[in-house]
Amino acid sequence: MHTKKTKVKRIPKRGHYDFETIAQILDEDFICQVAFVHEGYPVVIPTIYGREGKYLYFHGASTSRMLVNMEQGFEVSVNVTLVDGLVLARSGFNHSLNYRSVVVFGKAILVTDDAEKEAALEVVSEQIIPDRWKELRPIKAKELKATSVLKLSLEEASAKIRTGKPVDDKEDYALDVWAGVLPIEKRYGAPIPDPDRHKDEPLPDSVKNLLKS
Amino acid sequence: MHTKKTKVKRIPKRGHYDFETIAQILDEDFICQVAFVHEGYPVVIPTIYGREGKYLYFHGASTSRMLVNMEQGFEVSVNVTLVDGLVLARSGFNHSLNYRSVVVFGKAILVTDDAEKEAALEVVSEQIIPDRWKELRPIKAKELKATSVLKLSLEEASAKIRTGKPVDDKEDYALDVWAGVLPIEKRYGAPIPDPDRHKDEPLPDSVKNLLKS
Repeated sequence: MHTKKTKVKRIPKRGHYDFETIAQILDEDFICQVAFVHEGYPVVIPTIYGREGKYLYFHGASTSRMLVNMEQGFEVSVNVTLVDGLVLARSGFNHSLNYRSVVVFGKAILVTDDAEKEAALEVVSEQIIPDRWKELRPIKAKELKATSVLKLSLEEASAKIRTGKPVDDKEDYALDVWAGVLPIEKRYGAPIPDPDRHKDEPLPDSVKNLLKS
Repeated sequence: MHTKKTKVKRIPKRGHYDFETIAQILDEDFICQVAFVHEGYPVVIPTIYGREGKYLYFHGASTSRMLVNMEQGFEVSVNVTLVDGLVLARSGFNHSLNYRSVVVFGKAILVTDDAEKEAALEVVSEQIIPDRWKELRPIKAKELKATSVLKLSLEEASAKIRTGKPVDDKEDYALDVWAGVLPIEKRYGAPIPDPDRHKDEPLPDSVKNLLKS
């Protein structure tokens, strides 16, 4: 939904408001920044999330400051930013970044139903390591109780995207300065088995698949 | 400075308050999330930054919503998060992330002196691509005018860090489940020269050094 809040004001041509674009960006990461107002001042905290359908799910210990605030019904703003590359132009002024970013506005709702809560935790787990959840023992009742889960509608969200080559001032194209894009890549390194393992477990499919991705 | 705001409340043993630790984390990245309160609701926006001494510097077009807000003296909260690895435990509940994160609170100040402004832009540029600034033509007066620069003291800041192996419930160590850490690495891909270049400029030292780093 395109509202006054979500409208991309700075460089409007980079703004996108369709759900597919927003969902694709959200699905490429699992870390977001959640901002809220606490005693009148802004607070921003990183946290992990999962997306399913038109909702983001967050979890945390029932005691965390962020979650306590959300339970009281404070509005939040959430950002996910993927940095795709450095854009080197012929002037400092025209240097830029290639990025894909989503900002969501809304009120996070506490999930109180245990079945919905457990399903949401699986969504968050799947977002980070697909198929890990089914490799694990079921969650215990006391663990579920110690965890708060919140959901946030994606109704009020927008994306901002920059792609492609540098854009320089006309006269600067004559300068003998290298210009172009330096891509930024994220990858997983070699897995480090827990030194406290009781035997040499083989690498699970979930990790193998992440390493292939 | 350790204040009520900066105190790490959730898992306090992960909190760090010494300047060196905070500066080291900030120096490993150049993207942060800035949160502020706009018309009563929280807004979070990604932006690039540079650190010099005990200040963070931000820049943007003089017209951007974030900067307009800052000029009016709104308080901000800034987060930088480095995600170092996935921590796979023997239960879903004990899965975690290895990360290093900094949260800063304070009032961003508009830099109005032109020399200080230009120096700050160099700080931001150096944070992203060391030594690029000196490869470029000097910034023009109209470019400097079109750019706003803000500085934020690091006086009120804290870091939160998790490192190392998974920590499981005692009885779960007997489970036949792979546990360990999957490191996350960031690297630069092969540079893509601007298709609009007028001749085949050699790769500059700044880019060569980034690729080596």
